[in-house]
Amino acid sequence: MPVHYQEPTQLQPIAGLRLGVAEAAIKKPGKRDLLVIALDAGTRVGGVFTQNAFAAAPVQLCRERLAAGASIRALLVNSGNANAATGAQGLAAARDTSAAVEAALSLPTGSVLPFSTGVIGQQLPVARMTAAAPAAVAELRADGWLAAMRAIMTTDTVGKGASRTVETSQGLVTVTGIAKGVGMIHPNMATMLAYIGTDARLTTAATQALIADVAGRTFNCVTVDGDTSTNDACVLMATAKVGTVDVDAGHPDYTVIAEAIEAVCRELAHAIVRDGEGATKFITVAVGGARDAAEARAVALSIAHSPLVKTAMFASDANWGRLAMAIGKAGVEGLDVAGVTIALDDVAVIEAGQPHPEYHEDKGSAVVSKEEFTIRVGLGRGTAQTTVWTCDFSYDYVKINAEYRT
Amino acid sequence: MPVHYQEPTQLQPIAGLRLGVAEAAIKKPGKRDLLVIALDAGTRVGGVFTQNAFAAAPVQLCRERLAAGASIRALLVNSGNANAATGAQGLAAARDTSAAVEAALSLPTGSVLPFSTGVIGQQLPVARMTAAAPAAVAELRADGWLAAMRAIMTTDTVGKGASRTVETSQGLVTVTGIAKGVGMIHPNMATMLAYIGTDARLTTAATQALIADVAGRTFNCVTVDGDTSTNDACVLMATAKVGTVDVDAGHPDYTVIAEAIEAVCRELAHAIVRDGEGATKFITVAVGGARDAAEARAVALSIAHSPLVKTAMFASDANWGRLAMAIGKAGVEGLDVAGVTIALDDVAVIEAGQPHPEYHEDKGSAVVSKEEFTIRVGLGRGTAQTTVWTCDFSYDYVKINAEYRT
Repeated sequence: MPVHYQEPTQLQPIAGLRLGVAEAAIKKPGKRDLLVIALDAGTRVGGVFTQNAFAAAPVQLCRERLAAGASIRALLVNSGNANAATGAQGLAAARDTSAAVEAALSLPTGSVLPFSTGVIGQQLPVARMTAAAPAAVAELRADGWLAAMRAIMTTDTVGKGASRTVETSQGLVTVTGIAKGVGMIHPNMATMLAYIGTDARLTTAATQALIADVAGRTFNCVTVDGDTSTNDACVLMATAKVGTVDVDAGHPDYTVIAEAIEAVCRELAHAIVRDGEGATKFITVAVGGARDAAEARAVALSIAHSPLVKTAMFASDANWGRLAMAIGKAGVEGLDVAGVTIALDDVAVIEAGQPHPEYHEDKGSAVVSKEEFTIRVGLGRGTAQTTVWTCDFSYDYVKINAEYRT
Repeated sequence: MPVHYQEPTQLQPIAGLRLGVAEAAIKKPGKRDLLVIALDAGTRVGGVFTQNAFAAAPVQLCRERLAAGASIRALLVNSGNANAATGAQGLAAARDTSAAVEAALSLPTGSVLPFSTGVIGQQLPVARMTAAAPAAVAELRADGWLAAMRAIMTTDTVGKGASRTVETSQGLVTVTGIAKGVGMIHPNMATMLAYIGTDARLTTAATQALIADVAGRTFNCVTVDGDTSTNDACVLMATAKVGTVDVDAGHPDYTVIAEAIEAVCRELAHAIVRDGEGATKFITVAVGGARDAAEARAVALSIAHSPLVKTAMFASDANWGRLAMAIGKAGVEGLDVAGVTIALDDVAVIEAGQPHPEYHEDKGSAVVSKEEFTIRVGLGRGTAQTTVWTCDFSYDYVKINAEYRT
């Protein structure tokens, strides 16, 4: 059960986007595992993708089609099969399944972006997918977001979605996003997919820059740089239905729109952690006093990825020695431990590299026994800071990942 | 229960070294938790230590004393308390407990090296340890290795020791070593201590160079560079009892002595993995075809540290997609997946970045169902190679680490 998160019961439609799902029996029958998102002409699309060298076939095709500057008119997403490590046949499968959507929607070749999530190294069931594509297209509807949210789930225990509406000089702008992903020990090793739609009139350049920027502060803060799965992808679609004047980074409406998109992405990113495999706690790791953002991030991720820290948190054990260990191993050049502070929420634990005189185990235990708390670290050598989010590490993580294919 | 490893029932004495243990009730009563190793005058000592910024007080003192070039005449080791993140008081405690051994053996100040392993962030029980030190000294004996091996254990389920005897031009040389450590997901985050004795007449320079070199190919291959615990230490003591001519790297006997020391260290390092917390399988990861050793090591450790790989191995699931993912995320610049091969023992799984035509799931499952097997990776871009050792990742890892302090 996710930590303080419930599946949304409503998501705001976005003018210019329609969503339809169908059953293609990709991994097993009985699940609507195929999603088509149709984009009105004129929609601007930006995306960020995995850095993994084994980038899946659909990721390769997405990169190629976005780089070509083609007008993107639909997205095709399947769960149950990642189409990764599948070679030339996998690339052909991504093209062929996309072509089925292009045919059903009478779109030119290259106007569909394909996405896959699921088991690596098996070929896509192309025939079943192409047969099901027209059914998904027939189901396209503006209020299809909740069904879409569920179609992309794999080991997720709940669907993840969020909406925001904000006022701009050209009228109300709505943002709706859906995401899937739960592999939270090294989050990006499980596939994270996120689709964000807005009716704002963002330029193509602003759409791409904005999603790259926002993903860096949201999805990539529950993830490790360069340590992504074969299939990770995050796409922003701006349908340009609100207003008549294009919005770029210099436009007065830009900030409020960007904030709404970031709020949706942050909520989705947090939902992924809250639904992390086996998670029982939602943990914020805030590191300050760093010389630069890179070292703050290195320390934060060293803590957030330490199995020893995470198992202690699972046990509600305020074992700050493991926090000190994780800070010390983060590779911060010339770190003086005498300047390091550690707090659990507002309870000071470490000052000057050793236990705070007023710290007692009971105080720390009270914090880490909660379902949500913050590990605060000060490095005492600068002003840079960062925040990442993670979960604890339980028996169920092992269970879920040991039995994934059985 | 360790994977294919049994505690030794005999360890060869080393002329010039005597070992004694005593009970100091450091963490709890009833365990002989204090070890003294006395070194005859003339023993040459070399050591390698943790790179963690939170290096424990005893590690700081060891570094200081070895750098000062003092004649080292004894080692003091305690289990149950790491004396790490303990500030000035911890450093004083390391000095004071060492002084108790210096007094009991009538040695000058600075001639004892202290070592601690156990819980971080608690002050040493100095009074109990200084009171127990004379008892350990009174117990000193040449055949004290097995008792010493047990005194340094923490969560180890078995003691770890090994001996070798080899012939040299100056006579038979014996090497005996003991080690402790079991935290195997990020191995070096749990404390690894190793003490290796030999009666060879190695020079001080050769002793230091040899242990640094050998540790790099043994203990550091079940570990991550720069990712060590607060207390990791490995010490080589050469008592110079065999022969009359000093042996340095240019001496004809050097190679055979170095090989014996490496064999002992490799056996101890493997024993640490075999007794890894919750381990049910012993896994060798061999990476070849790399441009240099660094990228071979990056790929090997990316695999060896992946929780997704390790949970799949625990489940005897030949989920090679996770191997591909781990290779792909290792940060190898410009890796062409078309050149990548993966094999499980002698079963070819991946060629040219996709499944081998003759590979069937059954073949892979047969390999990873065994208690010992090798994951072989070829990068297809050079001739450099490396080997690391790891274990799988089970429910018991979580259990052991969640309940460590309870």
